[in-house]
Amino acid sequence: MKTYIEPKVLKGFRDFLPQSEIIRRSLTENIENTFRSFGFVPIDTPALEYAEILLGKGGGETEKQIYRFLDNGERDVALRFDLTVPFARFVALHKGELTFPFKRYHMGKVWRGENTQRGRYREFTQCDFDIIGSDSPASDFEIIFLIYTTFLNLGLNVTIHVNHRGLFNRFLSHIGQSEKSVEVLRTVDKLAKIGEEETLKQLSDLAGETNAKKILEFIGAKGSFRETLDRITELSGGICAESERLSLLRQFMIDAAGSSPNADADPFVLSPSITRGLDYYTGVVFETFLNDMPDIGSICSGGRYDNLAGLYSKDKDSISGVGTSIGLDRLLAALESLDKLPCANSHLTAIACVDMEKSGQYHALAQKLRQDGIACEVFTEGCGEKQLVKQFMLAEKKGLRYVIIPGENPLGDNVTLRDLSARKNTEIPLIEVIKIIKNK
Amino acid sequence: MKTYIEPKVLKGFRDFLPQSEIIRRSLTENIENTFRSFGFVPIDTPALEYAEILLGKGGGETEKQIYRFLDNGERDVALRFDLTVPFARFVALHKGELTFPFKRYHMGKVWRGENTQRGRYREFTQCDFDIIGSDSPASDFEIIFLIYTTFLNLGLNVTIHVNHRGLFNRFLSHIGQSEKSVEVLRTVDKLAKIGEEETLKQLSDLAGETNAKKILEFIGAKGSFRETLDRITELSGGICAESERLSLLRQFMIDAAGSSPNADADPFVLSPSITRGLDYYTGVVFETFLNDMPDIGSICSGGRYDNLAGLYSKDKDSISGVGTSIGLDRLLAALESLDKLPCANSHLTAIACVDMEKSGQYHALAQKLRQDGIACEVFTEGCGEKQLVKQFMLAEKKGLRYVIIPGENPLGDNVTLRDLSARKNTEIPLIEVIKIIKNK
Repeated sequence: MKTYIEPKVLKGFRDFLPQSEIIRRSLTENIENTFRSFGFVPIDTPALEYAEILLGKGGGETEKQIYRFLDNGERDVALRFDLTVPFARFVALHKGELTFPFKRYHMGKVWRGENTQRGRYREFTQCDFDIIGSDSPASDFEIIFLIYTTFLNLGLNVTIHVNHRGLFNRFLSHIGQSEKSVEVLRTVDKLAKIGEEETLKQLSDLAGETNAKKILEFIGAKGSFRETLDRITELSGGICAESERLSLLRQFMIDAAGSSPNADADPFVLSPSITRGLDYYTGVVFETFLNDMPDIGSICSGGRYDNLAGLYSKDKDSISGVGTSIGLDRLLAALESLDKLPCANSHLTAIACVDMEKSGQYHALAQKLRQDGIACEVFTEGCGEKQLVKQFMLAEKKGLRYVIIPGENPLGDNVTLRDLSARKNTEIPLIEVIKIIKNK
Repeated sequence: MKTYIEPKVLKGFRDFLPQSEIIRRSLTENIENTFRSFGFVPIDTPALEYAEILLGKGGGETEKQIYRFLDNGERDVALRFDLTVPFARFVALHKGELTFPFKRYHMGKVWRGENTQRGRYREFTQCDFDIIGSDSPASDFEIIFLIYTTFLNLGLNVTIHVNHRGLFNRFLSHIGQSEKSVEVLRTVDKLAKIGEEETLKQLSDLAGETNAKKILEFIGAKGSFRETLDRITELSGGICAESERLSLLRQFMIDAAGSSPNADADPFVLSPSITRGLDYYTGVVFETFLNDMPDIGSICSGGRYDNLAGLYSKDKDSISGVGTSIGLDRLLAALESLDKLPCANSHLTAIACVDMEKSGQYHALAQKLRQDGIACEVFTEGCGEKQLVKQFMLAEKKGLRYVIIPGENPLGDNVTLRDLSARKNTEIPLIEVIKIIKNK
């Protein structure tokens, strides 16, 4: 029998101590409240699924990073590595039980055997939200507006960069380069990394210099949303369904959130360079940047996709949708840097233990405070008047502002309120104590 | 490349559709609010840990049920099968960062490859709460009182059966049978299953008929808390630290929650037959039964233990504690049977889509309702006055009571409120709509 095992956690995994867990929960609660206020509903799926389902079309990075094993029944299983694949499987399985358009969110842990040297975790929380079963521009807008409102409710101003994959395709077709769209997109995607000059060179090799310049003009179009839209519409051969959809989105944004007279301060920007990868998205795409910390990159990216659950469906009905994902770990890090971490203001107060044998009465006193919305801890140790200093120190260590020192008759008499920051005691009725604590 | 994969979940695992996920979340939120109001703080630990740590002293059922595998780095890892073992490891690892007494709760999923034929799940949620680093009877009481309050806040009346393992041991010692305590406990534990006659027979074989009768008298002692305590104290050779602790707990219960003049209705009962297994608990133990459904068995059991983190600590300081666990799945099933499922009353209301191009204005209207605490979904499909019937049907399917039909000028005019249950439309100002929805 073992007598000592070294306590340690796996690399890339984390314990959450109360201080950080409270903040995480306040953050997710705030976000969930916004989702729910828009009528979005939560779902959950198993952590463990058949590997075949999670790997889907299979391939590459995912296969290398997934936690996959044979269970005790010799089933080939794996831990979910994102919430998108389980959602596709979920929709295929429960299509008949859902009401469409289906607006759902899903917050949950996912696992990837990533290289931890890049500062990545192997267990982290994702937060996805989507509308499926709707092709309406109103749904595109709703997701974008929900992103905007979610961050606003966290005290964060964001700029959401929007584009339409279809309009870029139409442009390529217009300049006779549609068969090269994959290579062009791949090159354009590297713009920020390799610079304009090198991009131009590579695009010229692909499509000729004239076209390369046009491509750079398209993705580099700047100005107000309207100006940019007019420019890229013109470059694509004129008004089309895709440009009309972007135009409508712009109208919705102004109607719902107002528009800034200063284009630089506009929360919604048309950015023709945003393409969001190659395969998945087919329509509107977007990325979200914190105005106070744009450098950390997009904290909420997504777009419109076709045929979400196709791989898991026998019938031909394809379910399209629009959705996105918030990176909670990156968001938490940003909130910390900005000193905007949500705090769970529960007014936590302690009742000192003067006479342990009165603990029942202390709890009766605590219940009165709890009924008034004041979280109240009853100390169980360090009894006796002379031990109060120890209890004050404990309370300070817990970050408390007040300690209540009950009298001889805890429920009947006045109590003594210790203000730890002022180092002052006041003897007052309980009703006054409640007022002071709630107004601190 | 695959073109179709059958969508299915692993046996013993579950998807949670919105309706049940909303209820689960309302339930855990309610419970967490009570915990937080007592000053208990949340922690979290990884789903995956070194198998060596989770298996600890090793052995038996756990080893057979655990999901264990080699990760991509050839580490021997496993999914946590409870929250107790990770907590012991957590405390050993973070002792220096915690403030004692440490009052924590932990809600999280755990995984066991159980036999699903017994109606058990392989993925389920546990909810543990403990006070560690305190030997005080006030801590024993606090856990018991927190159980009582938690269920009361869920609208459930419970009876908590309490006992003290040490007093039973003292009794066995008093009748000269302490060396047989393990066998006696094992036999006593079977009482409900094998009946009194068979228990008496087995105990007689173990300890002689006279002692067997005394043991049955001890564990069968009945009456009010006080009467039972007096009886078992006498059978154990008189007042001792253990009987004094039970006496104090009784006093705390009366002081904090009041006492019922009718012993049968008392929420706190002394039950000398409760022993809670053989190894882990060393002091006060307890089980919790729903007054309206006692047959489903204890829904919250626990007790006092010594040296929680001993296996993972090199130093000799032992950290004792008292704690318990709520079985959320069983609780949910009970709440459903009792028709007491918590409901998330968000007043969810929908805004009909009369003119899709006004979706932005509909969202501006929705924001006004959201600011007043009304969750508001904006419909994106089925536009046009003539399509309203379809939208009413969708709203009914979602369980909504009201649909708002915006006018020509959604933000300026009156709106039409459709009461789906009365099948009636009323044209009124928005402010009236808000009043009606909030008072429904």
